[in-house]
Amino acid sequence: MKPNSNYKNLKDSYLFRNIAMKVKAYQEANPDKHIYRLGIGDVTLPLADEVVKALHRAVEDQAHAETFHGYMNECGADFLRSAIAGHYKKRGVDLSVDEVFVSSGASDELGDILDLFAYGKTTALITEPAYPAYLDASIMAGRRILTLETGMENGFVPQPGMPVKEWSDSQSDDKTPDVIYICSPNNPTGSVLNRQQLAKWVEYADSVGAVILFDAAYEAFIEEEDVPHSIFEIEGARTCAIEICSLSKTAGFTGTRCGYTVIPGELERDGMKLNDMWVRNRTTKTNGVSYIIQRGAEAVFTDKGREQIQKNIAVYKENAKCLMKALDAAGISYVGGKNAPYVWMQCPNGLKSWECFDLLLNEIQVVGTPGAGFGSCGEGYFRFSSFGSPEDTAEAARRIYELWKS
Amino acid sequence: MKPNSNYKNLKDSYLFRNIAMKVKAYQEANPDKHIYRLGIGDVTLPLADEVVKALHRAVEDQAHAETFHGYMNECGADFLRSAIAGHYKKRGVDLSVDEVFVSSGASDELGDILDLFAYGKTTALITEPAYPAYLDASIMAGRRILTLETGMENGFVPQPGMPVKEWSDSQSDDKTPDVIYICSPNNPTGSVLNRQQLAKWVEYADSVGAVILFDAAYEAFIEEEDVPHSIFEIEGARTCAIEICSLSKTAGFTGTRCGYTVIPGELERDGMKLNDMWVRNRTTKTNGVSYIIQRGAEAVFTDKGREQIQKNIAVYKENAKCLMKALDAAGISYVGGKNAPYVWMQCPNGLKSWECFDLLLNEIQVVGTPGAGFGSCGEGYFRFSSFGSPEDTAEAARRIYELWKS
Repeated sequence: MKPNSNYKNLKDSYLFRNIAMKVKAYQEANPDKHIYRLGIGDVTLPLADEVVKALHRAVEDQAHAETFHGYMNECGADFLRSAIAGHYKKRGVDLSVDEVFVSSGASDELGDILDLFAYGKTTALITEPAYPAYLDASIMAGRRILTLETGMENGFVPQPGMPVKEWSDSQSDDKTPDVIYICSPNNPTGSVLNRQQLAKWVEYADSVGAVILFDAAYEAFIEEEDVPHSIFEIEGARTCAIEICSLSKTAGFTGTRCGYTVIPGELERDGMKLNDMWVRNRTTKTNGVSYIIQRGAEAVFTDKGREQIQKNIAVYKENAKCLMKALDAAGISYVGGKNAPYVWMQCPNGLKSWECFDLLLNEIQVVGTPGAGFGSCGEGYFRFSSFGSPEDTAEAARRIYELWKS
Repeated sequence: MKPNSNYKNLKDSYLFRNIAMKVKAYQEANPDKHIYRLGIGDVTLPLADEVVKALHRAVEDQAHAETFHGYMNECGADFLRSAIAGHYKKRGVDLSVDEVFVSSGASDELGDILDLFAYGKTTALITEPAYPAYLDASIMAGRRILTLETGMENGFVPQPGMPVKEWSDSQSDDKTPDVIYICSPNNPTGSVLNRQQLAKWVEYADSVGAVILFDAAYEAFIEEEDVPHSIFEIEGARTCAIEICSLSKTAGFTGTRCGYTVIPGELERDGMKLNDMWVRNRTTKTNGVSYIIQRGAEAVFTDKGREQIQKNIAVYKENAKCLMKALDAAGISYVGGKNAPYVWMQCPNGLKSWECFDLLLNEIQVVGTPGAGFGSCGEGYFRFSSFGSPEDTAEAARRIYELWKS
């Protein structure tokens, strides 16, 4: 048996492990110090009451023969697919229930969905800085990979036509991608593509026959009118885009697990409909998402559930504001924070990402994430997450200001 | 963008859809008739009380900040991995916690795990009759596929050295497989490999460097001493086998979703450890299984939980006995039923599988699954599932006997 040797091309995924090791060492050496954790992008507030109630009810359903649910529809339960389609409808996006697939979450889906694209013949364009799994999943599948780097000069907003770099060994001069990864609001930068900027990608993808994998995991944090929550708000997207979304950040489902994916009926290449292919993939390779979890997810889309999750999101958004205020006061440049749970800071005084990490940990006990972990154009930047407690975030912001005020 | 054209090689998955359509048409034409459903392999008894309690407790954990769980270990929560390793220990199989991976279920894992094997260079051997997803997942991944057909003459027990057929277009004379699918107790035939028969596969795989994907989803139904529950009860398996297991049939989790996979530390090829590769795959492509569901699964492995699920399994085993008794009395040949929830009947009077289906539906309102749906060597056979209600199963058995008694 020959193993998949593409795995040899993966770099060690040291980012979060490295952070954990450094924090552990510091804490052991300084047991009396409180550490302010603005590092990992995990939520901290519990599930909304409506979701908890729905989960309990669903557990009870599984406890009695009359209400027991066995195998689920592999593509998602009708009740949840309808609820999600209804959610899109409120934003003016018409989807049929069959275009919505329930998943265990965005990261699960971002890996699995690559199976739709031809092995050995697919070029993936990754807009950086980026969530490391885009690159790693593409490497595992043996894709040719191009990267498009953004920076402070363009507000970390990727646009077609910006220079691309060859990541793989390909000698081909043709830099046309087959698959384009776009994440807006972006992890890690918190930057967003407005309607016009996203429309440029749709136009480009349609013109070259590429498919956009649109990661909308942070859409619930958008507050500006001109920023689309869904790529399907853009004309032309139904023939060139797949949208991958998650309840992890929307409703605190990081450990509860549920997400959804939209594949329009019109999306086809070489006469093959990607929606049909995905139905076949799901019915072959899964038995659907847990009934209990799908009932919990359904509650997110009710009026009461919506209201409750908005309260949690408001807490995280206040945290972001608090961090932005401190950076503004200290005269430090950053992007994000407004429509996203991340603030992406330019490290002051020419510090490199990991130097900044060490300084913040050792001097003021604040933990964040070095930008270099998200691609080489992240070097010199630093990500703060707004998912911590309000008290810790406020104190961290105060310390950051004190450290760097001019 | 080029789609994955391997999907074009898939046949329509008409088996269960076809059954559903025929049953629907019959019911509409005969609204007064009760239909006895022994077709699909789905459980009908509710979750065990201990599991239900654990699920409720876990939902409450997610409702409060102090006990809330965010991102889980992608390979499984320690509490569940330990519980599963403890379960193996009772059968004399020593596993380290790191060798156990928690999954959303066997079908999810059987598809995903193919990513460990080199694309374009892997030959899969499928022992038939087989669960259709083995073939379909291999087709999607563009594997060369060989089939090894079993029959009544060998009790539907596959053994190395039996003739293999080329399913793909490969012209290669080398019929050595890289990956071997073995399911024992078998779906659909209910047949099992005893210790000696399974040892032959381990010896063969070790000698040619192949990896066995051992589907143990029905192990909880084994009652004979000489039938291994795990391939790791066989010496030599740690260097050639991956075991994929599920709580779907063990504990009624078909709609609740949880399973586990064992990849031994020693299993390596070309210097790559498959366990390490799978850790990397899970950490890149998933965020783990829901905390709530993992807590429910943990309860299956407690003494009380074990006792309760055994009661459910006993109900299904009584159903199988009832069907076997009717076939014995009518003088009809079959295998399975003893260590499995399936009874695999040779269709009487030379009937083909679908002829048998139509006859049973139209004459005695009994629904089963045509054997031809599980590979061409299933033609002329018919699967009865023991997951129906005891009352319906008893009446179905009576009708089968009346129809075919000599």
